[in-house]
Amino acid sequence: MSYYSPSIEKLIESFEKLPSIGHKTAQRLAFYMLDLSQEETEEFTNSILNAKKNLHFCSKCFNISDTDPCNICSNPKRDNSIICVVEDVRDVIAMERTHEYNGVYHVLHGSISPMNGIGPDDIKIKELLTRIMNEETKEIILATNPRVEGEATSMYISKLVKPLGIKTTRIARGIPVGGDLEYTDEITLTKALEGRSEI
Amino acid sequence: MSYYSPSIEKLIESFEKLPSIGHKTAQRLAFYMLDLSQEETEEFTNSILNAKKNLHFCSKCFNISDTDPCNICSNPKRDNSIICVVEDVRDVIAMERTHEYNGVYHVLHGSISPMNGIGPDDIKIKELLTRIMNEETKEIILATNPRVEGEATSMYISKLVKPLGIKTTRIARGIPVGGDLEYTDEITLTKALEGRSEI
Repeated sequence: MSYYSPSIEKLIESFEKLPSIGHKTAQRLAFYMLDLSQEETEEFTNSILNAKKNLHFCSKCFNISDTDPCNICSNPKRDNSIICVVEDVRDVIAMERTHEYNGVYHVLHGSISPMNGIGPDDIKIKELLTRIMNEETKEIILATNPRVEGEATSMYISKLVKPLGIKTTRIARGIPVGGDLEYTDEITLTKALEGRSEI
Repeated sequence: MSYYSPSIEKLIESFEKLPSIGHKTAQRLAFYMLDLSQEETEEFTNSILNAKKNLHFCSKCFNISDTDPCNICSNPKRDNSIICVVEDVRDVIAMERTHEYNGVYHVLHGSISPMNGIGPDDIKIKELLTRIMNEETKEIILATNPRVEGEATSMYISKLVKPLGIKTTRIARGIPVGGDLEYTDEITLTKALEGRSEI
């Protein structure tokens, strides 16, 4: 049995659907919303609706963007001959944060995962190949997540791209900076050993 | 410097303004929103806008409600002669959850707090008095929070109501059920002693 009026009940339920929001937090957020002025509330809901309306996938790299092509693809200072392949839009942001990469991206929007019924045709691999064919690509950097699905996806793409004579690299897997050898799992340590470089 | 498109940036900022939502959670919520269908997004924003539009204060007890008078005030089974005075709408819900109270409520929307510049005229005390004058009230139960402000508010109201010959009670302060004497502060323990009852 609920003690709230229908409108509050509905509002709490809406917030409860969001990830990492439990019932108590949903209640707090709902009452916070009711305390806002009409203007502030509309600003909030409009930011959601506008984002949905304005954001599209970049037709080149499938990054999410207000513009098409996105501000990375359309930046003349970026090196179009190097493509970094990532699984998700958020991975682009993670890469950008390094300030070390000057190429462009290709967002796959997922990884090959037969367990979840996701095959190569369900992610943007075909689009990557079309892009490589039409552009002068010198290097493909595979930056998928170092998990089973990410590794499989990288392997799959490298098998398709290598015969085209394009340099294909995979980002290093190893011990994270600040990490501890003692607490590093065997697979990571094996990868760190394999990936060792001369100093 | 931001790596996101303006619309995403704005959306993340909107979520970040909410209480108990940090930057990381705001990012997660923003991307979750973008993953929703247009229909689901509108359902979410509408639940907010509808709540703002439909919810009003009950003109009798100042509880928040879709209807006026609220479903508690308009319920013929509730005893209108007993008024439980609380600080906040959420306190009504807390009381209702006990299933033990059959009277009506009066929501003050705050407590007297000179430190924060909130005087008796800033909360719904005048409205409570008008209500008592016009209705046949037998008992006022003061259920403000057992903090300095709540106690002061209760004291203030009791001084106004008692001369009218209306029974005025204060909810008991003591050790919470399941609590531990060892870890109970002296003030609570003093109140628990004072409020002892014969068994």
